Amino acid sequence: MNGAEALVRTLVANGVTTCFANPGTSEMHFLAALDRVSGMRSILVLHENVATGAADGYARMTGQPASTLLHLGPGLVNGLSNLHNAGRAGMPVVNIVGDHATFHRRFDAPLTSDIEGAARPFCSWVRTSASAEQVAADGAAAVAAARTRPGGVTCLILPADTAWNDIGDDFTPPVIPRPDGYAALDGSAVDTAAEMLRDPAGTVILLAGEAVQEPTLGLAGRLAAETGARLMAQTTNPRIERGAGRVEPERLPFPIDQAIAALAGTRQLLLVGAKAPVAFFAYPDRPSVLTPPDCRIHCLSRADQNPEEAIRAVLNALGLEASPLPQEQGPAPEPATGALSLEALGRSIGALLPEGAIVVDEALTSGRSFTPATRFAAPHDWLQNMGGSIGYGPPLATGCAVAQPGRRVICLEGDGSAMYTLQALWTQAREQLDVTTVVFANRSYAILRHELAKVGAGNPGPALLDMLSLENPTLDWVKLAQGMGVEAVRVDDMAGFNTAFRSANRHAGPMLIEVVL
Amino acid sequence: MNGAEALVRTLVANGVTTCFANPGTSEMHFLAALDRVSGMRSILVLHENVATGAADGYARMTGQPASTLLHLGPGLVNGLSNLHNAGRAGMPVVNIVGDHATFHRRFDAPLTSDIEGAARPFCSWVRTSASAEQVAADGAAAVAAARTRPGGVTCLILPADTAWNDIGDDFTPPVIPRPDGYAALDGSAVDTAAEMLRDPAGTVILLAGEAVQEPTLGLAGRLAAETGARLMAQTTNPRIERGAGRVEPERLPFPIDQAIAALAGTRQLLLVGAKAPVAFFAYPDRPSVLTPPDCRIHCLSRADQNPEEAIRAVLNALGLEASPLPQEQGPAPEPATGALSLEALGRSIGALLPEGAIVVDEALTSGRSFTPATRFAAPHDWLQNMGGSIGYGPPLATGCAVAQPGRRVICLEGDGSAMYTLQALWTQAREQLDVTTVVFANRSYAILRHELAKVGAGNPGPALLDMLSLENPTLDWVKLAQGMGVEAVRVDDMAGFNTAFRSANRHAGPMLIEVVL
Repeated sequence: MNGAEALVRTLVANGVTTCFANPGTSEMHFLAALDRVSGMRSILVLHENVATGAADGYARMTGQPASTLLHLGPGLVNGLSNLHNAGRAGMPVVNIVGDHATFHRRFDAPLTSDIEGAARPFCSWVRTSASAEQVAADGAAAVAAARTRPGGVTCLILPADTAWNDIGDDFTPPVIPRPDGYAALDGSAVDTAAEMLRDPAGTVILLAGEAVQEPTLGLAGRLAAETGARLMAQTTNPRIERGAGRVEPERLPFPIDQAIAALAGTRQLLLVGAKAPVAFFAYPDRPSVLTPPDCRIHCLSRADQNPEEAIRAVLNALGLEASPLPQEQGPAPEPATGALSLEALGRSIGALLPEGAIVVDEALTSGRSFTPATRFAAPHDWLQNMGGSIGYGPPLATGCAVAQPGRRVICLEGDGSAMYTLQALWTQAREQLDVTTVVFANRSYAILRHELAKVGAGNPGPALLDMLSLENPTLDWVKLAQGMGVEAVRVDDMAGFNTAFRSANRHAGPMLIEVVL
Repeated sequence: MNGAEALVRTLVANGVTTCFANPGTSEMHFLAALDRVSGMRSILVLHENVATGAADGYARMTGQPASTLLHLGPGLVNGLSNLHNAGRAGMPVVNIVGDHATFHRRFDAPLTSDIEGAARPFCSWVRTSASAEQVAADGAAAVAAARTRPGGVTCLILPADTAWNDIGDDFTPPVIPRPDGYAALDGSAVDTAAEMLRDPAGTVILLAGEAVQEPTLGLAGRLAAETGARLMAQTTNPRIERGAGRVEPERLPFPIDQAIAALAGTRQLLLVGAKAPVAFFAYPDRPSVLTPPDCRIHCLSRADQNPEEAIRAVLNALGLEASPLPQEQGPAPEPATGALSLEALGRSIGALLPEGAIVVDEALTSGRSFTPATRFAAPHDWLQNMGGSIGYGPPLATGCAVAQPGRRVICLEGDGSAMYTLQALWTQAREQLDVTTVVFANRSYAILRHELAKVGAGNPGPALLDMLSLENPTLDWVKLAQGMGVEAVRVDDMAGFNTAFRSANRHAGPMLIEVVL
């Protein structure tokens, strides 16, 4: 048995059973091992940022790491921006990066680069295997590091000779007992939270991460309702469970002035898995911190602690019933008709969202009205970009669909964003994944037009505006999708959208809808 | 005046007049300055790796750096793999990377990352501007570092407040006198080379970089012909001037066994701008060094020295005439007819290549027969991938066409390679660049099939072969190109190819030809 096979066996034994691969010469032995080891599903992608974004999506839906398989330093760096997003989401990912054979590195062949140096800014754990004998232990350590809460992006570098050298046949894969337990709750943090909630005026409970998923979400709804505190969720979250029958915390807005207004008057802020809110970007004459200067900020539970346990403990300390708050049903949404508008699109999406849908939200400017419009949609998961690097949507949707066959994935995309990682569509077609991609074609980097005024860059001249326009030529998303084997349709009114969206969501395999705004 | 405008004025004053931009919020002031400063052409790209690859291409054709404009850490990392290629090509590039305002960094907002850490493995010069007052000096230093031979990839990080803060109106852009002079030649290296060539049996002169361009190329041809040494060129070069009337050095082959065979019996190796030849990848049971163990390797001139001066000095030392060797005209190539084959395609490309064409070669497996077939084509430049990270072709072609309007750029692409950076086609359409892209659709990562046997990964099983196949679904390059506004045609015989290639090369603006192999 060679080192590569030992690694694949170790990954499988430690529960890593999916590999998003864009391989090269130095990864051939890893691929060859897939034919000798059962239990690893390998999925080909045509760009590395699809692999890393798919691993992020897989982790969001399963809580488990997938692996990637990447080709030397350039292969890794091609996937780093979605690793940035995965890291910010606290998602476990195990990257396997092939390298030149150990004896070959000193010759500085063209593809040689400092892979560890490239990985470190975006990975919490980086190691280069020193020998074939070490590979299995390194692989198990990588999985363990990935699983350490709140989830780590890891990078195991595999020199070609550590993959191809023989280690004999006396091999049992090392298994590291799952290290994904929560850190202990801090009792005094619970006491302080309870004390704050006994005086709830101007108090906000800010949820993030697992706290916006069941069962914590319902318990947090109870805590807010019984104490009179205001319940909010972080602007973005890796996965929010929402829709009819669920508690819907108010979402902290993205635009800075709206965010500051939303938190005005907040005297006490209780963080449950959330970070103290700061501006996404800095702007001249705006603060970085979004809470009022005299706001008391208290962390009830960190991202590596159990939010359910934390909320239950506070409910108990206050003598309140530790059960989810029943939710009133809202009005069943109806699809909109007539002319296309973002408001109408939101209503139709809310009305037509399939039960159990996984919504990947990268619509940026177009998508802001969709949150209220989907409040009483069928229960669904809503996934957001945690690191702000655009182009996360199509890869994430790919990984979600691989992780949860049987659920429809709805990928809401801006046209500017979707262009970064459009290669994901090919993998969706190849694996026949149930993904509906909706591209909102406003034919501009519209979010930058919004940002322009806020940064005080003056009246935009033609050179600047030209850099924000995606017109001339117009992107044809129907052709782009068809070019990668994905069925596609263009719509220009709500009747067309409703028909296409219903049909896409019943379609076996991927489909793309271009909405011309 | 703000820091951003000071920077744009400084770049222009130092000869950087083209910017390949994929901006975000933190770069708005730089863009706004473009409307107040004349002399900078800004070109929008839809992925950062297009920006960096285009800057590489621009530098290959002009010897001058272009700038890129990238959005924070994730924007930079998206462009790193083509910066790896540019760095390996010794090309000057000035990357401008926006960052959060200095006062905002400590809040660790979602897009925060260690930009300097990400840049360092791929950049020879990295600096973060500390204040608006420093930006101009930093910009001038970045250009100077980029121009230092053999050319450097530089990264200037521009925090948003250093861009928007005012520096007053008393500003003259600092200009650093061009530091791109050659390092002095080593006289004893010339003497040694002359001495070796007096005993030329088993002697190879290995050219690379500027040594495969005029006037050095013709002089090197003279030196080899008069001494009886063998004239070779490195396997890959940033830009080779070739075709009818020019000296054609034998090219060191890429496949390792052919490379070892080509150098067998070499007793003395004279390097002119070249590196001592090593294997591109390591393989079990193959050496890393391609020359025989007892070969004497001598460096006549490094990449930062003047190869023309070096060859002239050796000719003088040997008492030989220091003038280019006149070349015999070969047979004028004729286009091939009949069924498609790589051999026939090579012949037609050789026959139909427009005079002064700039050929960007990323055809990998398909392109190997093209070199001999284009030996007597009309004079042209042939550009190759220096870092081995695929997806360099369409961006490079974009930059070449921007740099040299009036010359036709021919981009020879594998389908696997082209998928990494297909977004470049949109910029080619937007700027109406004269690029003919030929995609050789073998529908597989064919080069990996070739590599498989050499790495000793055994008989490939279905899981492995599936990872090398780009079938299911088939990529439709005509639709992909049209989806980005580029006219396209598919051909399946030589008559169709000849017609399409002729027509594309007369077409104003870009065109794509899909060759179904």
